Amino acid sequence: MIALFTDFGASDIYVAQMKAVLLRDAPAGTPILDMLHGVPNFNARAGAHLLAALAPQFPTRSVFVAVIDPGVGSDRPAVALEAEGRWFVGPDNGLLSVIAARAGKPRVERIVWRPNGMSNSFHGRDLFAPIAALLAGGHHPDDKLAPAERLAVEFGGGDLGEVIYIDHYGNVITGLRAASISPATSLRAGGHTIEWAHTFADAPIDTPFWYENSIGLAEIALPLGSASARLELGIGERITIAGND
Amino acid sequence: MIALFTDFGASDIYVAQMKAVLLRDAPAGTPILDMLHGVPNFNARAGAHLLAALAPQFPTRSVFVAVIDPGVGSDRPAVALEAEGRWFVGPDNGLLSVIAARAGKPRVERIVWRPNGMSNSFHGRDLFAPIAALLAGGHHPDDKLAPAERLAVEFGGGDLGEVIYIDHYGNVITGLRAASISPATSLRAGGHTIEWAHTFADAPIDTPFWYENSIGLAEIALPLGSASARLELGIGERITIAGND
Amino acid sequence: MIALFTDFGASDIYVAQMKAVLLRDAPAGTPILDMLHGVPNFNARAGAHLLAALAPQFPTRSVFVAVIDPGVGSDRPAVALEAEGRWFVGPDNGLLSVIAARAGKPRVERIVWRPNGMSNSFHGRDLFAPIAALLAGGHHPDDKLAPAERLAVEFGGGDLGEVIYIDHYGNVITGLRAASISPATSLRAGGHTIEWAHTFADAPIDTPFWYENSIGLAEIALPLGSASARLELGIGERITIAGND
Repeated sequence: MIALFTDFGASDIYVAQMKAVLLRDAPAGTPILDMLHGVPNFNARAGAHLLAALAPQFPTRSVFVAVIDPGVGSDRPAVALEAEGRWFVGPDNGLLSVIAARAGKPRVERIVWRPNGMSNSFHGRDLFAPIAALLAGGHHPDDKLAPAERLAVEFGGGDLGEVIYIDHYGNVITGLRAASISPATSLRAGGHTIEWAHTFADAPIDTPFWYENSIGLAEIALPLGSASARLELGIGERITIAGND
Repeated sequence: MIALFTDFGASDIYVAQMKAVLLRDAPAGTPILDMLHGVPNFNARAGAHLLAALAPQFPTRSVFVAVIDPGVGSDRPAVALEAEGRWFVGPDNGLLSVIAARAGKPRVERIVWRPNGMSNSFHGRDLFAPIAALLAGGHHPDDKLAPAERLAVEFGGGDLGEVIYIDHYGNVITGLRAASISPATSLRAGGHTIEWAHTFADAPIDTPFWYENSIGLAEIALPLGSASARLELGIGERITIAGND
Repeated sequence: MIALFTDFGASDIYVAQMKAVLLRDAPAGTPILDMLHGVPNFNARAGAHLLAALAPQFPTRSVFVAVIDPGVGSDRPAVALEAEGRWFVGPDNGLLSVIAARAGKPRVERIVWRPNGMSNSFHGRDLFAPIAALLAGGHHPDDKLAPAERLAVEFGGGDLGEVIYIDHYGNVITGLRAASISPATSLRAGGHTIEWAHTFADAPIDTPFWYENSIGLAEIALPLGSASARLELGIGERITIAGND
């Protein structure tokens, strides 16, 4: 499987161009999955934490094309990372670094190949998709990749006390792994104190709460409503654990 | 074919996680179709009428995963329904009940299986997708399903005199089947009277009209414009047939 | 491959109905690609120029279903066009005419077949998809197509000095092919003068610029921001080349 994780927009002109390359180069019948194209625009740090939480939901041996790439066309390096049996291909701007930091034995390879006619603004199509297609076919393109000691940009494997994603219901997803927070504890965000509940069905009426969501992150939600609107929380808003702030 | 009908959002993080399960469990090569992920949030009643109008457009032997599930994590039951040669899998909260009421011999099966590690907030991924994958493979998992007399929540097979969906053009789709309304008749909505026309090409200039849309429902439209904006109609707005109100 | 190019909306109820027909009628395993469903609503002219820029990114022998069709249900003709080894199927309202005008030896075929039970408002599903499925299978349905001298509506093969698309970042795509503009030249739009830069990485800080985008068109962009919001440019806004205005 090839899974796509980008800020290209699910309804825009970019994803299909990338898929046309994957269909051309990957083994026939390889499933191509739109994992998310709504990563907050240009936000490699939020994307890195979201990707690290989502990727374990997908099977090992998947190849991920992960592109949040505001530095496209500059000299930022391009990289392929193997971690826990999955390959990740994308810019070396931190986006893959949370995955790498949390993995047992990550393998970092610099992409040294550059295709003829590569554009300056769309490496997802021109550079990352062809490499991902080769990896999905079980090939390790030795002439296109060079082993590297480590990533150029590293955010580390710790949690991020910020809002990293807001879903279309208005649920507010944080970069805090719920397993690292004691359930009795409250969160603080935007001047609000938010109590824990087990899940939606246990939450008090009409009151935002936080819970461990289905990808293991602390999420602030409001039953039948938008926690984001109610609490006026946006991407990047600081989240603290009560007692730690 | 497995068809997905949800309020998960077409651009959000949920659909791909569900598809990863379907790709893992369904027979290789089974097409997975995004039927709609924009059912009005939490609105099982609107979803039930829209699903009943859309499903006949899809081939028999399709398996539908239908999830509008504000009660996820509570004790609302889970169900698989066979109706007119199609299987529907989802929460037993009324969403499948219009289909069932209109079918010849619906077969209702309670989902009694619960997977290890099932989340409290995402049964689409953890419960409904695995069952749908088995059904798509032609298996009837006797150990996971138990026959039931009827659904727990039933909306009935009649029409719904409300706005159930607004498309991205601003066309206003009602829960009234057009075949049950005489063409010469007007509709009333939000204080407006709306005349019938055969289709867009026959409608008077710059005037909202209603017609039988391509899935058999009465729809209020405005050529080259948004009927929803012009008439200020939203989801749930009451629609009546002139003479019946 | 069958590629879909429409204004049906990526999150709406129409695309899946069209795909169900393609899955039924096209050879098993034919990839179906969502090229774009966000063409500006009803805007065949903008769509024609965008399609002409995008189509060469897709492989020859692809079949495109292109539907921006405000005249559906009227007597506007339906057409299949072969151009540069690709087939295009859609309404004959100009949408395919820029492709045709720029092609070496375009072949125009009027669709004379009408299926039983064809709706008046959804020819994408009822008329164009079945024809595209046949063409994707390598069949030329002689009984359904009739050779024609030319298209009924022709926009010509020249550039369009207008905004034809705004992507979700706020990048402003024009109908001007960059190869026809000298790099040193400025563009004018909405009272602004916009200087050229090679790409995002070379642009001055916080200043909108124009560059040749990855599909060969002149695009106005703002690094890490929305050029559309900054310059207040919308679809249809006139774009001129400095010195030509």
